[in-house]
Amino acid sequence: MDRVEVTLGVDIGGTNTVFSFIDAAGNCYEDGRISTRGSEPAGRLLERLHGAVTTASEKLPPHFHLMGVGIGAPNVNYYKGTVEYPPNLDWEVVPLKQMAEERFKLPVAMTNDANAAAMGEKVYGAATQMTDFIVITLGTGLGSGIIIDGKLVYGADGKAGELGHWTAIPGGRLCGCGKQGCLETIASATGICRTVRLYLEEEMKEVPSLMRDLDLECLTSKDVAEAAQKGDNVALEAFRYTGEILGMKLADAITFSSPEAIFLFGGLVKSKNLIFDPARKYMEAFLPPSFRGNVKLLPSGLQDRNIAVMGAGALILDQLRGA
Amino acid sequence: MDRVEVTLGVDIGGTNTVFSFIDAAGNCYEDGRISTRGSEPAGRLLERLHGAVTTASEKLPPHFHLMGVGIGAPNVNYYKGTVEYPPNLDWEVVPLKQMAEERFKLPVAMTNDANAAAMGEKVYGAATQMTDFIVITLGTGLGSGIIIDGKLVYGADGKAGELGHWTAIPGGRLCGCGKQGCLETIASATGICRTVRLYLEEEMKEVPSLMRDLDLECLTSKDVAEAAQKGDNVALEAFRYTGEILGMKLADAITFSSPEAIFLFGGLVKSKNLIFDPARKYMEAFLPPSFRGNVKLLPSGLQDRNIAVMGAGALILDQLRGA
Repeated sequence: MDRVEVTLGVDIGGTNTVFSFIDAAGNCYEDGRISTRGSEPAGRLLERLHGAVTTASEKLPPHFHLMGVGIGAPNVNYYKGTVEYPPNLDWEVVPLKQMAEERFKLPVAMTNDANAAAMGEKVYGAATQMTDFIVITLGTGLGSGIIIDGKLVYGADGKAGELGHWTAIPGGRLCGCGKQGCLETIASATGICRTVRLYLEEEMKEVPSLMRDLDLECLTSKDVAEAAQKGDNVALEAFRYTGEILGMKLADAITFSSPEAIFLFGGLVKSKNLIFDPARKYMEAFLPPSFRGNVKLLPSGLQDRNIAVMGAGALILDQLRGA
Repeated sequence: MDRVEVTLGVDIGGTNTVFSFIDAAGNCYEDGRISTRGSEPAGRLLERLHGAVTTASEKLPPHFHLMGVGIGAPNVNYYKGTVEYPPNLDWEVVPLKQMAEERFKLPVAMTNDANAAAMGEKVYGAATQMTDFIVITLGTGLGSGIIIDGKLVYGADGKAGELGHWTAIPGGRLCGCGKQGCLETIASATGICRTVRLYLEEEMKEVPSLMRDLDLECLTSKDVAEAAQKGDNVALEAFRYTGEILGMKLADAITFSSPEAIFLFGGLVKSKNLIFDPARKYMEAFLPPSFRGNVKLLPSGLQDRNIAVMGAGALILDQLRGA
């Protein structure tokens, strides 16, 4: 039987570390999941990961050959191959790429999860024919991966592509990064919930809303989407505002790098037109006229897949192909 | 005598078209200038330019060899080699690159003037050792040229790098591009004069100012700088505000592409610390803490040279070297 080359995609999260074997067509095999256990050293995680991967690989058909390992992780310095002071993990500066190479005896590539997502879009998603595009992940925060001329943008120090920390509202909401008014304090699953709480408790105090019956501390973006779908005015205004601020900053991204498309990924994207319509409208309005009507705002082609794991696999595949 | 290879750098402006022969070290020879005459067809300009260049080249030493022509022009579509609806010129869509190749019988490269400036900084200026940086030209408007991984960023359609049209103040001042609140309506020589007029006539009506004796319609950024140097409070506040808005948006540029440095060029830069101090202060303040203290904000290394002509020469030199 013909040899099938696969990569291992790994996504290290604060709680769980998930992995999958991926072939060149993007088919995933033998998905696995272990606890990250952030209080333990990184070497211990790699040891447990290697054990779980070895067990899983024994179930692969014998003509499958593992070529390399791609890792998506928080706070990666791409050039150094290190993970540096990751939130939710008690590591400091860990040379994780080299440690993984030694553990797996295979080529390893590592980047942050939003960069991996962009690479996943390029190799397995909706951007296989594009050389210039941006992927925005709307989750707890807002992550971004930027592809220019077919390559991920890392910049001089490996930290490029942090659009979640673009200033959207000078002096605005406090962000987890320590500064105020970052885009992700508004345009993210967490951000839209902050907006709704503000509306219900202050700015739209008198407006009836289905969400007043919910425990606002536990409010999710799914709750907001469900209310909006029922015509709830507070929820609809929260989506409009989120789209306005997101669209305004996407326009800035377009005048910077002139991408062919911007892809959105994540929970908020499941709300479909609730987020796409206002985002698209304000994106166009905040563009100079000569740039209007030119850039596609689309859902990720991997919206229902594990983009972080597939992206990590795509990262090492892209590197092996380029080598 | 050893052969000396030179390029021809050409900058097509609304009023004049200037050129120079440039050697690999950045020395300029036989500078020339002709009227652009924007009401005449582009072919006529190239004919007159070719005549002037031929005359000038006869004064070059005989061991000088012209290798190619670089052109900086307004509204260039880099991929198509066209100039499209340039302001101040009665051309529509002109395939100027091809026309120049036919006229000069030499390789031609063409881009807009701010992109040319960035290439000039890379080849002849202060960025010869850098692969990731941004050049901002502060003139009538705000132009930008972005270098990532050693290459100019053009994007999917050749229009990337228009930071002058980033939204700085949503719903703010009307820009020449047709939308409101663009960065260049504030951070440019024209923008600071608009700010001063607004201060004198409205927001700081009661504040004494040396500039009240000037004809405000003819106010220049040099007038504002001179007043600021004498301690004029209105002028100082105008510089502070200009620096604040510029710095805020430079922080966004940094989180996008993580450049090693940002260079400022143009009349406003001659005001030195008046613009650099507030721009640097607010740039740092608007960065996420993990990005602070890392990116240099510097005057262009070609501040006292003709960066557009040298940049155009650098553009074709870079292309010939890469070929």
